[in-house]
Amino acid sequence: METMQENALPEAVVVDTSRSPHARLRPVPLTAVSLTDAFWEPRRRTNREVTIPSQYRHCEDTGRLDNFRRAAGTKDIAAFQGIFFNDSDIYKWLEAASWTLAEGGDPALAAMVETAVEAIESAQQSDGYLDTYFMFEKEKDRFTNLKDMHELYCAGHFLQAAVAHYRATGSDRMLDVARRLADHIGNVFGPKEDSKQEQTDGHEEIEMALVELSRATGDEKYRKLAQFFLDVRGKGTIGGSPYHQDHRPFRELHEVIGHAVRMMYLSTGAADLHLETGETALRDALDRQWDNMTTRRMHVSGGLGARYEGEAFGKDFELPNERAYTETCAAIGSVMWNWRMLQTGGDARYADLMEWTLYNAVLPGLSLDGQAYFYQNPLADDGAHWRQAWFGCACCPPNVARLLASLPGYFYSTSDEGVWAHLYAQGTAALTLPDGRVVTVRQETRYPWDGDVALHVAGEGEFGLFVRIPAWCEEGATLEVDGEPYAATLAPGSYTEVRREWRPGSVVRLHLPMPVRRIECHPYVAENRGRVALARGPILFCLEGIDHPEIDLRDLVLPAGPELSAAFRPDLLNGVVTLGGNAQVAAPADPWSGRLYRAARGQAATQAARPVPLTAVPYYAWANREPGRLQVWLRAT
Amino acid sequence: METMQENALPEAVVVDTSRSPHARLRPVPLTAVSLTDAFWEPRRRTNREVTIPSQYRHCEDTGRLDNFRRAAGTKDIAAFQGIFFNDSDIYKWLEAASWTLAEGGDPALAAMVETAVEAIESAQQSDGYLDTYFMFEKEKDRFTNLKDMHELYCAGHFLQAAVAHYRATGSDRMLDVARRLADHIGNVFGPKEDSKQEQTDGHEEIEMALVELSRATGDEKYRKLAQFFLDVRGKGTIGGSPYHQDHRPFRELHEVIGHAVRMMYLSTGAADLHLETGETALRDALDRQWDNMTTRRMHVSGGLGARYEGEAFGKDFELPNERAYTETCAAIGSVMWNWRMLQTGGDARYADLMEWTLYNAVLPGLSLDGQAYFYQNPLADDGAHWRQAWFGCACCPPNVARLLASLPGYFYSTSDEGVWAHLYAQGTAALTLPDGRVVTVRQETRYPWDGDVALHVAGEGEFGLFVRIPAWCEEGATLEVDGEPYAATLAPGSYTEVRREWRPGSVVRLHLPMPVRRIECHPYVAENRGRVALARGPILFCLEGIDHPEIDLRDLVLPAGPELSAAFRPDLLNGVVTLGGNAQVAAPADPWSGRLYRAARGQAATQAARPVPLTAVPYYAWANREPGRLQVWLRAT
Repeated sequence: METMQENALPEAVVVDTSRSPHARLRPVPLTAVSLTDAFWEPRRRTNREVTIPSQYRHCEDTGRLDNFRRAAGTKDIAAFQGIFFNDSDIYKWLEAASWTLAEGGDPALAAMVETAVEAIESAQQSDGYLDTYFMFEKEKDRFTNLKDMHELYCAGHFLQAAVAHYRATGSDRMLDVARRLADHIGNVFGPKEDSKQEQTDGHEEIEMALVELSRATGDEKYRKLAQFFLDVRGKGTIGGSPYHQDHRPFRELHEVIGHAVRMMYLSTGAADLHLETGETALRDALDRQWDNMTTRRMHVSGGLGARYEGEAFGKDFELPNERAYTETCAAIGSVMWNWRMLQTGGDARYADLMEWTLYNAVLPGLSLDGQAYFYQNPLADDGAHWRQAWFGCACCPPNVARLLASLPGYFYSTSDEGVWAHLYAQGTAALTLPDGRVVTVRQETRYPWDGDVALHVAGEGEFGLFVRIPAWCEEGATLEVDGEPYAATLAPGSYTEVRREWRPGSVVRLHLPMPVRRIECHPYVAENRGRVALARGPILFCLEGIDHPEIDLRDLVLPAGPELSAAFRPDLLNGVVTLGGNAQVAAPADPWSGRLYRAARGQAATQAARPVPLTAVPYYAWANREPGRLQVWLRAT
Repeated sequence: METMQENALPEAVVVDTSRSPHARLRPVPLTAVSLTDAFWEPRRRTNREVTIPSQYRHCEDTGRLDNFRRAAGTKDIAAFQGIFFNDSDIYKWLEAASWTLAEGGDPALAAMVETAVEAIESAQQSDGYLDTYFMFEKEKDRFTNLKDMHELYCAGHFLQAAVAHYRATGSDRMLDVARRLADHIGNVFGPKEDSKQEQTDGHEEIEMALVELSRATGDEKYRKLAQFFLDVRGKGTIGGSPYHQDHRPFRELHEVIGHAVRMMYLSTGAADLHLETGETALRDALDRQWDNMTTRRMHVSGGLGARYEGEAFGKDFELPNERAYTETCAAIGSVMWNWRMLQTGGDARYADLMEWTLYNAVLPGLSLDGQAYFYQNPLADDGAHWRQAWFGCACCPPNVARLLASLPGYFYSTSDEGVWAHLYAQGTAALTLPDGRVVTVRQETRYPWDGDVALHVAGEGEFGLFVRIPAWCEEGATLEVDGEPYAATLAPGSYTEVRREWRPGSVVRLHLPMPVRRIECHPYVAENRGRVALARGPILFCLEGIDHPEIDLRDLVLPAGPELSAAFRPDLLNGVVTLGGNAQVAAPADPWSGRLYRAARGQAATQAARPVPLTAVPYYAWANREPGRLQVWLRAT
């Protein structure tokens, strides 16, 4: 592995695979991409102006920052406040704030970051240890309960935050703390034959964090430590339960299982290691896990985790709607994992799932006003599930914030062949090819509401523009280059390379038809048999009670025939496309009243259907008006 | 309330409502009923010869009995063994063994009982306290965590066991221990204004136990203490959570909610109090809870508890199949509750549900060999769910044992009007009417496999025989009395009174047709839409993989038309009726392979169906051969 020059100026690269030997794609600093669209950029502005500052206040109000001051001895507080892993919330917040600072001056935010940095730095112990729960009377318990106590999970989130702070601000203040902490961890943990503690953490995170620290510092020992933590898992050193993915070595784990966030973080860390080492056994395990997840254990939203008990994956085809757990953090973990898989070879299926998950599984976790959060994201509800301003276990809120803050970094990659456009939104990008040539790409589009994307490309010499044809666009996609139809077959779920010497003013026009799609589910998913979900472009839709005040959505039946229409409604939910059409209401007939079971009557079971207008809104926007029933899967005839 | 004569000889009455002012029906000692049938009596013999002795050995092997010896100081053991509420397993076992002893001499069992009685008696503290967990270093923690630590739950199970031991054996040795324990509890708990601890237990049980102690001793103070525990619940004294039914006063609780076993035990205790006090507000709450349960929150088996998390009731219509929790103990709680409701007025719906629950929700909890148990009873499975020989939390095994041991006590009641036949099975009964006349009833029947029941009745003078017409018998029930058709309308779900002066040799012949029934479920239960369950008489059926080795049961579709046939198979599963017929297999068509979601195609979604023979076995008998798939709800056309 090439050693990085210590004095190189860092760039705000979210996952820095630019020197990873087994990455085909190269990352782009988030500062190289400027979004000017009407979908993401307003959300990112809300993230910057509302979400991140309000999270900071929550962290102060709940004692999360004071825990660091207590540990540092700079504030006299009797007891640690909150849950033992609350440090991680500060770290995720710091990561979000750092990526935000990378984009430009914000003195108020910079002051908050400075306060957090100061508190963290002061709380680090002389031996490098950093966890404000295990202080004073609890110091003796350090690293005694790896299974439950999240010490390395918290440490990992700090390492990620420190790397982000370094890359975003150029300051190595947090990075120095991170090195000392990681060195301490490396002194404690390792093979028994080295007289070290041969165990790993009950909650994965340290693996990807150490790989990133290795990338940021150029020091391979951190990557090797990550490898140790991956390899020791599955040997039962923390109890051997599937919940912790400790029942089976990773290379033999051919399903996604146990706690869903843990599983996603584990696969993400393993993918990071694969990018560095190219180990095929790792890759095989990752591929099989991905196949199992996408063909057996993923909700239609891209959400992950079927069970409340254990916040866990269920068995194959166990995908309830109202009781879906689908934690926001698990969806974020899926984005992180898919991003790394994408970097390995440029396989569009990972970008497809990343995009779908962003719109339909991550974004529902955040209210439109940026101040309330879902922990679980059900696909059906009676109106009782509502976003909260904060949680005792507040893992999801800063997780969403750091993803939104770093989002521009996920739009493009480069490679020896050229530039790759993964995501679509109006904006500009200045991308540097591996050979140093600068390419600019300007997207003109109303995506995700419209499938026409004009890519204005400028750059010297010959190179390829890899244009993603989304898997959702099952037919009719076309490409025009400078007004001429582009001849290549446009396979859904692939990248099409437009290779040429680019002229000034070159335009690639991608046309992705967005008919309303009806999606059906594998019949082994018990609740979805005889139902369809609605989608248009990359957006999953749903029905809400507020748009259908006269009926119970459970009685609504979508007839097979007529087309549904799509219309942009600038006034609604910050501007959304809604779907409209005619459905039927078939309420349970009278004889059901007061009965749960009866002799089967078949067709006589429902009253004659009567027509009713249907309005579907994007699923990510549900529960932003008033409490009421939600349905994603609709009964169909 | 009439005070019982202290020197009256006790009778082996399971729930002694014989003097309860608001009971219309009067209980019958279990010793008055002798079953000679081929369904229940072999199971009860297995209970006596296999289950109860093996449970005793488990209790010895796991330290459950040693915990008492440790507390008594008769055995030097360093630490309490097992879970903090393990005492309750001994008590439920003692209750089971006591009811069994009531039926006749069994020196080996009597010796085990003597050992347990000795251990329990010795473990009681001088102040009356009895809980072997809260001894020595934990003595200081007595009654400090009512919400979690089950002290009054354990105490309640002891009181029930002591009453059973007293009624079954005539010995007042355990009853004396029970009085001292209950007196101690009464000294500690009560209204604040009496300077007592105004709290109740996190797990209900003490309520029904104290009412029974009151009935056994004739001492009203125990009933009043039960009333206190009922009244204080719902005031938030133990945290106010729905899980503990502590969020709302019982009289305002109009749904079944929270931990299902707790809920059932609570309603049972409240029904016991209503039988004593006649309070209408209690009755109204009980009626509404019962309505909510039976029309919204009960699995088709009668099983209760939709959620693994919290072992709890779900929302209305939340009734998953593979993830059904349906704990065996909750079904037993339902039997206890329905029995008490039945005693109030002789409303057949309670007997209907009791019978259905016994066959289809309690009995599945026990293997045919009497040595393995289900804690959860799913209605669909992939073969991974299998009965266990014992559990760390072993609440269900001795609960099944005590119910089977006391079962004859649930077959009949008496009242001023005559005798009531609730359950059907071959056997004889000698019943004493309130006025002292003795009535004998001999049932000749192959029930539950056949619906012909001959009731040979003998007794002096005029009295009524109340014959239950089960709700499952929706048409065609007939009654013949001494060869003559009986004219009264036979409404399903009612008792028909046959009132007359009975001649020697009088026979009432009840004919209950048992066609195979297809049951459908309310369409708001998401998983069951488009499905049917099969039943015949009081028995719910299911399909098992072992009987359909060539197909995946999830692909099986039951056509609407043809009748299914029923046949008794003496060789199978200790002798069962099986259902046979023709179904179809409609496996997912090829295009699904490797996909979980796709563009809707409707009818093209499955391959052309091909015929396949179907064999259904009683649901209670599933998982007694080899692991494989289970389906109760079948796809139907």
